[in-house]
Amino acid sequence: MSVPRVEIISTGEEVIHGELVDTNAVWLSQKVVELGFHVQRRITVGDRMSDLVSVFRERAAHADVVVVSGGLGPTTDDLTAEAAALAKGEPRVIFEEWAQHLRDRFSLRGREMPDNNLKQALLAESAVLVDNPIGTACGFRLDIDGTRFYFTPGVPREMKRMMSEIILPEMAHDFGAQKRCLRRLHTFGVSEARMDEWLNQMPRHQDISLGFRAHLPLLEVKVLGVGDQATVLVEQFLASMPEKVRESVVARDDQSMAQVIGDMCRARAITISTAESCTGGLLADAFIHVAGSSDYFVEGAITYSNRAKQNRCDVNPQLLDEYGAVSLEVARAMALGMQRRAESTLALSTTGIAGPGGGSDQKPVGTLGLGLATESGCYSQLLVMPDFGRTSVRLVSTFLALDMLRRYLSGLDVFAPYEMIKRLQQHVS
Amino acid sequence: MSVPRVEIISTGEEVIHGELVDTNAVWLSQKVVELGFHVQRRITVGDRMSDLVSVFRERAAHADVVVVSGGLGPTTDDLTAEAAALAKGEPRVIFEEWAQHLRDRFSLRGREMPDNNLKQALLAESAVLVDNPIGTACGFRLDIDGTRFYFTPGVPREMKRMMSEIILPEMAHDFGAQKRCLRRLHTFGVSEARMDEWLNQMPRHQDISLGFRAHLPLLEVKVLGVGDQATVLVEQFLASMPEKVRESVVARDDQSMAQVIGDMCRARAITISTAESCTGGLLADAFIHVAGSSDYFVEGAITYSNRAKQNRCDVNPQLLDEYGAVSLEVARAMALGMQRRAESTLALSTTGIAGPGGGSDQKPVGTLGLGLATESGCYSQLLVMPDFGRTSVRLVSTFLALDMLRRYLSGLDVFAPYEMIKRLQQHVS
Repeated sequence: MSVPRVEIISTGEEVIHGELVDTNAVWLSQKVVELGFHVQRRITVGDRMSDLVSVFRERAAHADVVVVSGGLGPTTDDLTAEAAALAKGEPRVIFEEWAQHLRDRFSLRGREMPDNNLKQALLAESAVLVDNPIGTACGFRLDIDGTRFYFTPGVPREMKRMMSEIILPEMAHDFGAQKRCLRRLHTFGVSEARMDEWLNQMPRHQDISLGFRAHLPLLEVKVLGVGDQATVLVEQFLASMPEKVRESVVARDDQSMAQVIGDMCRARAITISTAESCTGGLLADAFIHVAGSSDYFVEGAITYSNRAKQNRCDVNPQLLDEYGAVSLEVARAMALGMQRRAESTLALSTTGIAGPGGGSDQKPVGTLGLGLATESGCYSQLLVMPDFGRTSVRLVSTFLALDMLRRYLSGLDVFAPYEMIKRLQQHVS
Repeated sequence: MSVPRVEIISTGEEVIHGELVDTNAVWLSQKVVELGFHVQRRITVGDRMSDLVSVFRERAAHADVVVVSGGLGPTTDDLTAEAAALAKGEPRVIFEEWAQHLRDRFSLRGREMPDNNLKQALLAESAVLVDNPIGTACGFRLDIDGTRFYFTPGVPREMKRMMSEIILPEMAHDFGAQKRCLRRLHTFGVSEARMDEWLNQMPRHQDISLGFRAHLPLLEVKVLGVGDQATVLVEQFLASMPEKVRESVVARDDQSMAQVIGDMCRARAITISTAESCTGGLLADAFIHVAGSSDYFVEGAITYSNRAKQNRCDVNPQLLDEYGAVSLEVARAMALGMQRRAESTLALSTTGIAGPGGGSDQKPVGTLGLGLATESGCYSQLLVMPDFGRTSVRLVSTFLALDMLRRYLSGLDVFAPYEMIKRLQQHVS
């Protein structure tokens, strides 16, 4: 059997007006993809009868399975069940089983059932009920022009329970789910075009496909395998990636680079401190964001003014005069001063020009000094990146600092080649 | 002219697979609704040529304007421009203007343009370029079967800039938007239900409508006026808001609270320093994110360990022993120590339990000490918020600290009433 084409329809004015993020559709997509099925299209429509009927009729001609969420409530703007019956061209009848369930539910709570709620038991006559153990809206299955439609409530926990317990297992059984394996690599310093070129030069099994997603300043590479051998094929592909690709992988799947660094530090009982100027807080935040970071993160200084650089990191004022605050020499002094003051194993420093002001011909916006003080010496470098704008310059600076530390801990050359970023000076002592 | 029917199409495997929440579509919906247009349908399709071509052809038959995002990158899975040409039935040609722009862009950065990138200048011959000032993917306009299509990149900041600067104004002009005035108030500490109640008790002209959007931990209140008197009506409404609403407004329109605070500091020649524990970098980052913050932001300390609190902020170790690191007393000592060390006018401190570990019965996750050292005394308080999870506890803590400073600078009571947040202690000296 070929892979079934699944479509997802979300209904509701608040969804289509952007007042509410459609997390139902995201969750549904993930679940359908996990079955190995193809999500062909995802559609959002408002609560208008004509829009609903036409979208059901239309998609019946193109999909094998359609999952609809929303519009099964008791109020006047809940039109989905009626629209489904109209699309099928079938009268609606009271499903006595559900009507009785509703009456019992209300009487259990000592309440009379409002007449409106009876509407929730009124379905096209060939519909098949799908139980809702936690709400008044039942789901239902209905075939329209040979396409299987599932209708579910818009309330996320009701929809999810119904899908997980009944609909997804039924879909997997009736349409034959395929095995899949997805691995995500978060890379830094290589452009999408270059990565695409490198990876497409590799031999690749036909059941493996690649995807890219810019998540600035990182590039996510997705390696997807399908079929019974999916996991083995994906692992083989990852293992055969050239060194230049593997070096650029800063984290995998759901991890962040700071987490990867933190795990290495914890395993080796290494402590870290940070001294930041241009990145002002972003570098410390990257570490502290990770639960348990107090195991290795000791302290940080945000030495935004020259005075703070002197007072907090013992930067010699002569260095500031001679080389300027944004220089290899000051980055180096900040890292060494911080390491000594914090008594941490390693210390990382940033000093740069984030803009929009403060740049000059010699040191334009995007100039960045980085320092990494280690047990065996201090690495420092002066880089210059394009003026991406203040927010992005600070963000890229944070990632460059983290990457310096990651490369050091991984035994790679600390001074990596980066696309788009020029290295003016480097120093080890 | 009747209200144009707008449709929004998002492309990309990662969107349709649910690996990524489609915030582009949400933003686009909101902007189209703000123009007073009708969003008829929102569709998501993957990166398959046949799916793309068929969705473009099909929607051309139903919509007046279609906005497409995604798939304009340089890699093999970027198919949108080619699909657009196929749907239109037109050959693609190199747009020399954009090709030259790309070459210039690369050579400015001292790099050779990869051949892949030339693909980004290859468009259906009747397309009209839409400039992208911050990326390599140009947008374009193309009429397919009499329907206006706009194609934009999937990178949110590129898409948003293109929409805001070129496409939305063009849509408003060509399809007749009504005169509108939209003001946005960013409020803190009041729930949506309460705010809704307060604002709906006010008399309101029929051409004014209200919208709410939770943008945690802020609540955005949108005041929209339509018609020729839109601006006057909106300003009148804002001016008549009760004091309790106005006090909760931390910023307006595109401003952030840190910007509002920074502007007040600059105007009064006030300098600030920060000492952070649980917020670790977020508070300093809020300030330094704002261009020109070196005018008032002097330095920050991230005193994550007790040792750092002593060494960097002169916190008396006896206080740490007696009251614990998360206490009103330590928050107070951190603020005073930081103010003295940094020689800043004001100093702000945070010390809290962000979780998931570290909580106790007496001091659960969500407990937060805040200190504000001023020229005339030191304000300190101990709060407790629900355990929102580590990321949100840190974020809410940052906003609570900022709001303490904002209220001080605005002459309001520093100890504000907040919904959902309990004040255990407060102190001024």
